[in-house]
Amino acid sequence: MAAAPLEFYFDFYSPYGYLASARIDEIASRHGREVIWRPFLVGATFALTGARPLVDIPLLGDYSLHDMERCAREQGVAFQLPENFPKAALAPSRAFYWLVDSQPETARQLARAVYHATFAEGRDGTAADLVADLAEPLGVDRQQLLEGIQRPEVKERLKQETEAAVARGVFGSPFIFVDDEPFWGNDRLEQVDRWLATGGW
Amino acid sequence: MAAAPLEFYFDFYSPYGYLASARIDEIASRHGREVIWRPFLVGATFALTGARPLVDIPLLGDYSLHDMERCAREQGVAFQLPENFPKAALAPSRAFYWLVDSQPETARQLARAVYHATFAEGRDGTAADLVADLAEPLGVDRQQLLEGIQRPEVKERLKQETEAAVARGVFGSPFIFVDDEPFWGNDRLEQVDRWLATGGW
Repeated sequence: MAAAPLEFYFDFYSPYGYLASARIDEIASRHGREVIWRPFLVGATFALTGARPLVDIPLLGDYSLHDMERCAREQGVAFQLPENFPKAALAPSRAFYWLVDSQPETARQLARAVYHATFAEGRDGTAADLVADLAEPLGVDRQQLLEGIQRPEVKERLKQETEAAVARGVFGSPFIFVDDEPFWGNDRLEQVDRWLATGGW
Repeated sequence: MAAAPLEFYFDFYSPYGYLASARIDEIASRHGREVIWRPFLVGATFALTGARPLVDIPLLGDYSLHDMERCAREQGVAFQLPENFPKAALAPSRAFYWLVDSQPETARQLARAVYHATFAEGRDGTAADLVADLAEPLGVDRQQLLEGIQRPEVKERLKQETEAAVARGVFGSPFIFVDDEPFWGNDRLEQVDRWLATGGW
């Protein structure tokens, strides 16, 4: 039996989620694993944990921005914080779940494109029009996408996915499960790598 | 001119501070650097950042304890959370600053002993009597220590060190400066190692 896929929970407006998205597939693949991508709304966990967006917090905000830029440079990926950060990333998350059952690979390509536009180019990745623009080159009809993300069942799907994430103990982005072992943060990916290599400790 | 020492800010009741203390000197030494240890009271930063002790936070609390134990196992150090965690670590911090100007090496040995008693043995490292017990084998008169940590100038010293840490941008434990470059967290020590090796990026 093939080893279970990793589960990669992320919020589309999470800088560290973006950084993790740039390397999670490669790490998993090196150990013969697939990755299931699962966007959710990290803001929904803030009421439980009392957390606030990092960049809004005195001292921590300045440090976090510095740390994001330093981590991005070390990973060799472009980084730019979008204006009006943070926001609830409803449109890209709904677009992902609208697509994922019928076109899983396209959904993941769209997720990558949204992350790139948001954190490499500093654009507003929460805007439905931008999400539709990014989906078009992937063969998705933009009008169908804009209608799809307004459907009650698609909105409900994102709500349920977010609730299921919280029920499982997810409280931040990125959050990765390796065979039910939880890892929070882009800074835990080296540990994920070693966990996959050794089977845990 | 020799390269500047690293500055290692830590709170005596910080589990991740304990984990960092077990390897910071070795990392620095590999790159020909000394380390200045600087205890402070991380609780003093909570009013600014709105942070709370990790273990008190829903979801995050359970995960953090799991993460601390997993990180300790990977580092190969014993780990046990003391009862009545967390507390303000006044006695060991004051004892450190009472000692450090005249006996810097003894102060550091005492810091290691307090961290070991607290997080390897789960004892109450905030208790003045325990701090005095741990100082005795290092050649420190326990009565002098117990009197010393009650002196107004020693109390004032810890207050000033804590204020200076916050003024410098320190908001968590451990917090390390490498030539004014700030790193927060035990999970940044691999990055500190690479920063020292490469001169930064």
